[in-house]
Amino acid sequence: MLEMKKEWENLINESKNGSVYALARLITKVENRDKGWLEAMQIVYPNTGKARVIGITGSPGAGKSSLTDKLTPKFLEKGLSVGIIAIDPTSPFSGGALLGDRVRMKGVINTEGVFVRSMATRGALGGLSLAARDVVKIMDAFGKDIILIETVGVGQDEVEVVKTADLTIVVCVPGTGDGIQAIKAGIMEIADIFVVNKSDQEGADRLVSDIQSMLDIATGKFSKIIPIVKTVATTGEGVEELVTELLQGLESNKNEIAWKEARVREEILSLLEKEVSRHIRDKWRQSGKIDSAVKQVLGRQRDPYSIIQEIVSSVFH
Amino acid sequence: MLEMKKEWENLINESKNGSVYALARLITKVENRDKGWLEAMQIVYPNTGKARVIGITGSPGAGKSSLTDKLTPKFLEKGLSVGIIAIDPTSPFSGGALLGDRVRMKGVINTEGVFVRSMATRGALGGLSLAARDVVKIMDAFGKDIILIETVGVGQDEVEVVKTADLTIVVCVPGTGDGIQAIKAGIMEIADIFVVNKSDQEGADRLVSDIQSMLDIATGKFSKIIPIVKTVATTGEGVEELVTELLQGLESNKNEIAWKEARVREEILSLLEKEVSRHIRDKWRQSGKIDSAVKQVLGRQRDPYSIIQEIVSSVFH
Repeated sequence: MLEMKKEWENLINESKNGSVYALARLITKVENRDKGWLEAMQIVYPNTGKARVIGITGSPGAGKSSLTDKLTPKFLEKGLSVGIIAIDPTSPFSGGALLGDRVRMKGVINTEGVFVRSMATRGALGGLSLAARDVVKIMDAFGKDIILIETVGVGQDEVEVVKTADLTIVVCVPGTGDGIQAIKAGIMEIADIFVVNKSDQEGADRLVSDIQSMLDIATGKFSKIIPIVKTVATTGEGVEELVTELLQGLESNKNEIAWKEARVREEILSLLEKEVSRHIRDKWRQSGKIDSAVKQVLGRQRDPYSIIQEIVSSVFH
Repeated sequence: MLEMKKEWENLINESKNGSVYALARLITKVENRDKGWLEAMQIVYPNTGKARVIGITGSPGAGKSSLTDKLTPKFLEKGLSVGIIAIDPTSPFSGGALLGDRVRMKGVINTEGVFVRSMATRGALGGLSLAARDVVKIMDAFGKDIILIETVGVGQDEVEVVKTADLTIVVCVPGTGDGIQAIKAGIMEIADIFVVNKSDQEGADRLVSDIQSMLDIATGKFSKIIPIVKTVATTGEGVEELVTELLQGLESNKNEIAWKEARVREEILSLLEKEVSRHIRDKWRQSGKIDSAVKQVLGRQRDPYSIIQEIVSSVFH
C-alpha cells in the first residue's frame, strides 16, 4: 500500500521535473486504472487548468497528422509547449493500432517540448472521451500549453472526444465526397474552424463554397462565424493563417461559463458511471454470481432483466 | 402504477396479435427506459430465442441498404419473416438521422411480414449495442425469424453492435480503398462472410483477391473458411448465393456454446452497468448534489476525483 503510494508520488515528481518517461508511465497507469489512480489524479488536479485543447478531426486521409505536424512548430515558435493525443482506430481482432499516422507525424515526434501520446479506441469503449480527458489533465498539469487531439471523425465515441476540446478543427479534402460524409458522421456541426486541406487539388474552391452554403443554411443555429481556412499541409501553406484563427478562437471562447459548466457536469457523471461500473464488474466477478447468472439465462431458467432488477434494488434498496 | 402496467400489457398483447403500431410503440418505450421496462422485458423474454441475427456492415455507400432490400424478399420466399434494424449515424447538432438509406430501402419498407426499425447512434452512447439487443429481443418474441442489423461499420460502438449478431457480413466495394479503411476501422476481422458489392465495376476481382490474401495471412487466427460473395445489389446479382451462404453459416454456428455464454455474460454486465448508472444519475440529479459538485469544481475548491471517490465508497461501503 505504502509502496504503491510511493510509486505514484515518484512518477508525479519525476514528471514535474520533466521526465518524459515518467509522464508516459503515469498516463499508462491512469489509463489502466491502476490502484491509487483516483488519489494520484487528486494530486495532479490542482496544477491543471492552464492548457487549451484543440480537436482535429476529419475522415481518414484528410491530412490530420500532416497538419498536426506543421501546426506544432508554429506553436513552439510562439513559446507554447505542445502535447499531442493521437487517437487510433484499433482493430478489435489484432488489438494493435495502425502506425501509419505516427509515421506521418515523424517531424515532431522527437522535438523538444512536444509530447506525443497515442490512444487506441479499443478498451476504452464508451470511455474514450473520459480517458482522453485524463491524459489532457496530466499533460496540462505538467506544463503543456496547447494540447492537440487528433482523431478520425467517425463514430459517436470520437465525436464525444472532440467535444471535450476547447476548439475543434474539421479537416476536409476536395473530391472525396467529404461534405456529405462529414454531415452523415455528425462531425460537420461540431466545427469551430473548417480546414480545406490539399487545397492545391482540383475542387478545393468548390468544397469551400459547399461548406459555406451549408453554414449559411445553418445560420441561426450558429451564434458565431465559422472560418474556413485553405491549407496544403504537406508544404505548410495556410498553416500560419490557421494558427492565427486558432489562437483567436481560443481567446474568444475562454470565458464561456455555461459551456464549461456543462462540460464539468458531463465529466463528473461519466467518471462516476465508469467507476461504479468497474466496481460492479469486479465485485460480481469475484463473487462467482455472474457465472451462475449466465448459466441460468442460458438454461432459460431466468431472464437477464429480472436478474438486473434484483441486483439494482439490492444496491439501492 | 396499475395504469402503467396495463399500458405495457396492452402493447405486448397487441404486438402479439400483429399490430405493427403497438410493436413500434413498445420498442420506443423500452428504448426510452420508460418506467416498467424491466418488467415488460421479463414478460417478453420467454418468447425469445428463435430468431437469427445477421449483421450487415461496411463503409457508407457500399450498398448495405440496397443489399438489405434485395435479401429481404429472398428470406420471405423461404417462409422466413424479417425484421430490419437500421442504425443511422446521427448528427449531434440537429438530433436528426439522415433518411437517405431509408429511401434506398423503399422496396421492403411496406412489405407484409417485414418490420423496419431505425435507431440513431445518438443518445445511446456506450449503449447502442445494448439498445439494439433489446430491439432484437422484441422482434424475436413477436415472431421475426431473421433480423438484419444494418450499420455503418465505423466506430467502436458499431463494431460492438455487429458483435451481437449471429453472423456478420462485411460489404466492400471496388475502387474505394475499402480494404485498408476496413482494416483501420477494425471491421474486417469480424466478418463471417465478405460481400464484394458493385462487382460489375472495375477492380472487383482485384478486391476479391486482396481480401483473399488478407484472409490467407490471417490463417490460423480464423478457425473457419470465410466466403467471399460477389454481388450487384441494384440488380440482385449474387444475392441468391449470399442467402445460401447466410443460411449455411447460421446453421453451422447454431451451437457455439462458448460464444453464446460470452455474449450472455457481456449482455448481463452491460445491462447492469447501465441500470446502476441511470439510478445514480437520477438520484444525484434529484438531490441537487450534482449542481453543488459542479460549482465546487468550477470554483476549484474541489477536484472531480475526490468527489467520485466519496460517492463510490458510500454506495459500495
